[in-house]
Amino acid sequence: MYKKLLTLILIFSSMNLFASNIKVINVADFGVYPGEDASPGVYKALEACRQYERAKLVFPKGDYDFYPEYAREKYCSISNNDNGMKRMAFPLLNFKNLEVDGGGSEFFFHGRIVPFVIEGSENILVHNFSVDWKRTFHSEMLVQGGSVKGQYWDVTIDKKKYPYEIENEELVFYGRGWKEEIGQNIVWDPNTSAPIYNTKKYGFAYGGRRGGVIKCRKLANGHLRLSTKIKAVPPKGSVFVCKGLHTTNRLTPGFRVFDNSDITLKDITVYHAGSMGLIAERTKNITLDKFNVHTREGSGRTVSTTADATHFVNCGGLLTIKNSTFKHMLDDATNIHGNYLLVTKVIDDYTLGFSTSHFQHEGFVFARTGDHLRFVSQDELLESGTAVVESVKVYNSTYREVKFTSKVKHLANTDTAANNITWMPELHIDNCVVEENRARSILITTFKKALVENCRFSSMMAGILVEGDTHVWHEAGQVENLTIRNNEFGDMCYGGKGAVFQVSPKIPKDKRKRGFYHRNIVFENNTINTFDNIMVEALSVDGLIFRNNIIKRSGTFEPLNKEQKAFNFEKCKNILLEGNILYGRKIQQSDVSLSAECEKVNIR
Amino acid sequence: MYKKLLTLILIFSSMNLFASNIKVINVADFGVYPGEDASPGVYKALEACRQYERAKLVFPKGDYDFYPEYAREKYCSISNNDNGMKRMAFPLLNFKNLEVDGGGSEFFFHGRIVPFVIEGSENILVHNFSVDWKRTFHSEMLVQGGSVKGQYWDVTIDKKKYPYEIENEELVFYGRGWKEEIGQNIVWDPNTSAPIYNTKKYGFAYGGRRGGVIKCRKLANGHLRLSTKIKAVPPKGSVFVCKGLHTTNRLTPGFRVFDNSDITLKDITVYHAGSMGLIAERTKNITLDKFNVHTREGSGRTVSTTADATHFVNCGGLLTIKNSTFKHMLDDATNIHGNYLLVTKVIDDYTLGFSTSHFQHEGFVFARTGDHLRFVSQDELLESGTAVVESVKVYNSTYREVKFTSKVKHLANTDTAANNITWMPELHIDNCVVEENRARSILITTFKKALVENCRFSSMMAGILVEGDTHVWHEAGQVENLTIRNNEFGDMCYGGKGAVFQVSPKIPKDKRKRGFYHRNIVFENNTINTFDNIMVEALSVDGLIFRNNIIKRSGTFEPLNKEQKAFNFEKCKNILLEGNILYGRKIQQSDVSLSAECEKVNIR
Repeated sequence: MYKKLLTLILIFSSMNLFASNIKVINVADFGVYPGEDASPGVYKALEACRQYERAKLVFPKGDYDFYPEYAREKYCSISNNDNGMKRMAFPLLNFKNLEVDGGGSEFFFHGRIVPFVIEGSENILVHNFSVDWKRTFHSEMLVQGGSVKGQYWDVTIDKKKYPYEIENEELVFYGRGWKEEIGQNIVWDPNTSAPIYNTKKYGFAYGGRRGGVIKCRKLANGHLRLSTKIKAVPPKGSVFVCKGLHTTNRLTPGFRVFDNSDITLKDITVYHAGSMGLIAERTKNITLDKFNVHTREGSGRTVSTTADATHFVNCGGLLTIKNSTFKHMLDDATNIHGNYLLVTKVIDDYTLGFSTSHFQHEGFVFARTGDHLRFVSQDELLESGTAVVESVKVYNSTYREVKFTSKVKHLANTDTAANNITWMPELHIDNCVVEENRARSILITTFKKALVENCRFSSMMAGILVEGDTHVWHEAGQVENLTIRNNEFGDMCYGGKGAVFQVSPKIPKDKRKRGFYHRNIVFENNTINTFDNIMVEALSVDGLIFRNNIIKRSGTFEPLNKEQKAFNFEKCKNILLEGNILYGRKIQQSDVSLSAECEKVNIR
Repeated sequence: MYKKLLTLILIFSSMNLFASNIKVINVADFGVYPGEDASPGVYKALEACRQYERAKLVFPKGDYDFYPEYAREKYCSISNNDNGMKRMAFPLLNFKNLEVDGGGSEFFFHGRIVPFVIEGSENILVHNFSVDWKRTFHSEMLVQGGSVKGQYWDVTIDKKKYPYEIENEELVFYGRGWKEEIGQNIVWDPNTSAPIYNTKKYGFAYGGRRGGVIKCRKLANGHLRLSTKIKAVPPKGSVFVCKGLHTTNRLTPGFRVFDNSDITLKDITVYHAGSMGLIAERTKNITLDKFNVHTREGSGRTVSTTADATHFVNCGGLLTIKNSTFKHMLDDATNIHGNYLLVTKVIDDYTLGFSTSHFQHEGFVFARTGDHLRFVSQDELLESGTAVVESVKVYNSTYREVKFTSKVKHLANTDTAANNITWMPELHIDNCVVEENRARSILITTFKKALVENCRFSSMMAGILVEGDTHVWHEAGQVENLTIRNNEFGDMCYGGKGAVFQVSPKIPKDKRKRGFYHRNIVFENNTINTFDNIMVEALSVDGLIFRNNIIKRSGTFEPLNKEQKAFNFEKCKNILLEGNILYGRKIQQSDVSLSAECEKVNIR
């Protein structure tokens, strides 16, 4: 007995020894239990954590439910998402040295509540749980047939999973506190768990506000007939996925991360979110490790998050994404970019007025004192220089005036855009899997060192897309040190558009004469095993090495771009294709399409 | 010369003498000129005013334009309006002793910008200008014909005034930064400049999101054919007015007034606003003097504001509305009420959780420390008592927990609602005109002394409506000292519903057995000259004197309620009808309909 007691004392002392700097707080002590609404208790537990310099919030393993009714709230302007007053399950606002350990629990959310809002915080570790909704924000239907002549599709819906009503001859889906029309939609193939081959063939009207009339009526056999302009009928059993209207279908991301440093998200699976799985802005040093996004096995769902799995806007420091799987999203696995704002006023030699252009940039924190901005011409995307911010006067969510520490009149006029290059990250994507999703695998536009390695990709559109534009999404900027190596690319672009590796800054046709936007790209030691023909498409690159890659035909589908060349370059310079194996042979001149403006292209 | 100089010096000294306490600031000194966007300059001028203890901002007389692009912005939760991030032309936030003198100018607004936001301020005088939009938020069409059999109306639209497009067979109106479907709509009579007689006859589908399909196509003769379910075709030349969708058609009121004291608005004409002309909340002592709302003569417009002319929610002190004209609004001239919140949780003996129910109450500031709340049962509307607030913990825009200074468990449970009676005003409405508007003339539910005198009323629905409900709009509360005297009521209720004087708290039929909600109402020395039969409708009143009123038939229209009695009482007590002249004779028992529960009814 004495011995046992001694052991116990020793164990407790050693625990205290190790934990002496960290206060451990158990949510159960704050009334958080499986089966009850965890939101108010978690808030109290977090406020208790706030009292300590270092705190760890722990969950006994279990299923927890989070409802919006008693959750805290904050107005959030979120880039590439829909702004608004957001309920928050975990409001991690202005915390330091906090760990949230889910203990392997499953977190279930109900209605419009953002699981994690992490703002103004430092050194945060969040790990060890899953995120899901009992009722998803998207809905899935099974195609039962249809007629191009009759201009209709017939579908069935599992009403328990995807509750709906027919209101005024219109199909309206609903969940806790929301209602949505069909809106944005896409056809998926249940056999591949991915968007259907040649997706673009099945264009369906955008069902909802000002998107044209989709009439819905119930047939005698219980099927629903959706009547609208259609181009083709998908195979019986196809999954018709809809996610509601543009402007209200990106309200509820899984993780909102803004204005922090040193954030680690680990061992987390996001089965669903009503927008992106994670959207991070202006945060230095982010690590995602085993941060997975995909549907829950056995759930019968086809789609996971209704937008990108992850998305990073003007983040800084080092961004690491490793050991993660991203599947079944309705958008890209990740997209790392800045935001171009347009110069809309020249106030004086030192001061410029900047406006956001895309409605999903409203409220964007563009610049603060000390930040470096880089200017490019709006059409040609030619860099004119950089300048340092002295002060910013924010007028409203679309307009601000920036005063610089040096004269900027020679750098910028009202045909100029700028990106904040203080807030662009070094990037390391390692050992990740992206497949069975709508849109691209990954998008990268950071000028800092970026390395993508040891990954497996297979997506409906491009595998790796390098963009940059000041007209549509306004996603910035140049890449200057990008390496993509040792990855496996499976079937790519089966939606019907894009290239396995696509560099396509948006420069109007007649503005591609001068200079180069991107530079120093290495694509090496990758294998590509896809059904279609277009491997590389590049515009406005100075320095692209495509080396030691092996390209095979998968034969999975009939090629969609039979006449296209494997390699397509326009206005590029210093291109080296070396040591690659294309369909078992060396690359030949005839595999390559070159515009007249290309210089120094070396194929060997 | 010497004499002149002396005079000049004397004039200047005397000016300084009078103005010694008030700093006069001219907007022209801040770059505000007719013909340019006044928003940024007015902001600067206001910030200059802020530097002085007493300041007067003056405008040289002229036409000024205010655009949203460079206007300041604030998220506003506005009762009975649509919340959101609001651009502000005059952000009067936390000012003291400020006068804004428009100098007889005309202020023109463009797009979604709220002319005046007055918050957290004391002793503010705003006067001497008009408010208008070049492009209104509502649109007007001329009915050219139609067919009930064919289920369509044909209309023409002045596209310069009301720009529109046909998108996907749908009629969509647009202005600077907005687009709206037909949405909520009503037919007006150009001969009366008012809603058409028997308005309800012309029910038209709610055109827009989930409101059913209204197809629009252009005919060979240039008319637009609107096809939907219709019940009747309005006379050719009728004006078909639409204001867009419920939830987005109350975004841009003229004056937003919240959390102030001593606010005077004088000599102001509001020709238009994209919601109410003025909405005031939690403000002590408001005076409106010659605060007019009506269409601009010669504008060709039928409708002025798209919601109420004025609206007061939980205001305090003395509210005065005098010498004002309210015409052509799409809703009431004024509505003075509190907001009932429902008790949704009983936390402990001292603490209750309260939730808003109507989406247009989200973010409502229900109570602060020291406020008195009055409880009523939700269905019977029976008062259980009052309690004083010790503290409030706001969770989010719908839920807050209130701790009281005394035990409240006996007063309230989850079938209880409460109103904040610290914030209900004494009311004096004097010498006003209300006519040619949709809905009621005025609504009053304040328990403090309320006097309406020397006014002229003629509206589509009730002349004076006294409500109170915990189920629909949740507008509170009892009247206990209301006098309506020396007013002229013209044609009333020509829309087809309501009574000239209507007291209709929303109590379900089977819950009208016990107690009384309203009390002590005097309606005397008024003249009523209307076409229809229903003069008074009252439910749940203890003490109603209807005295020395003269009632005539106007003969303007065919009566719509031929079988109805002039006086209708249900569950009332202490009713006195005395000294009235009805159609040239005394009121008889046969003019009165009494429910079995009525007590002490005296007709003489």
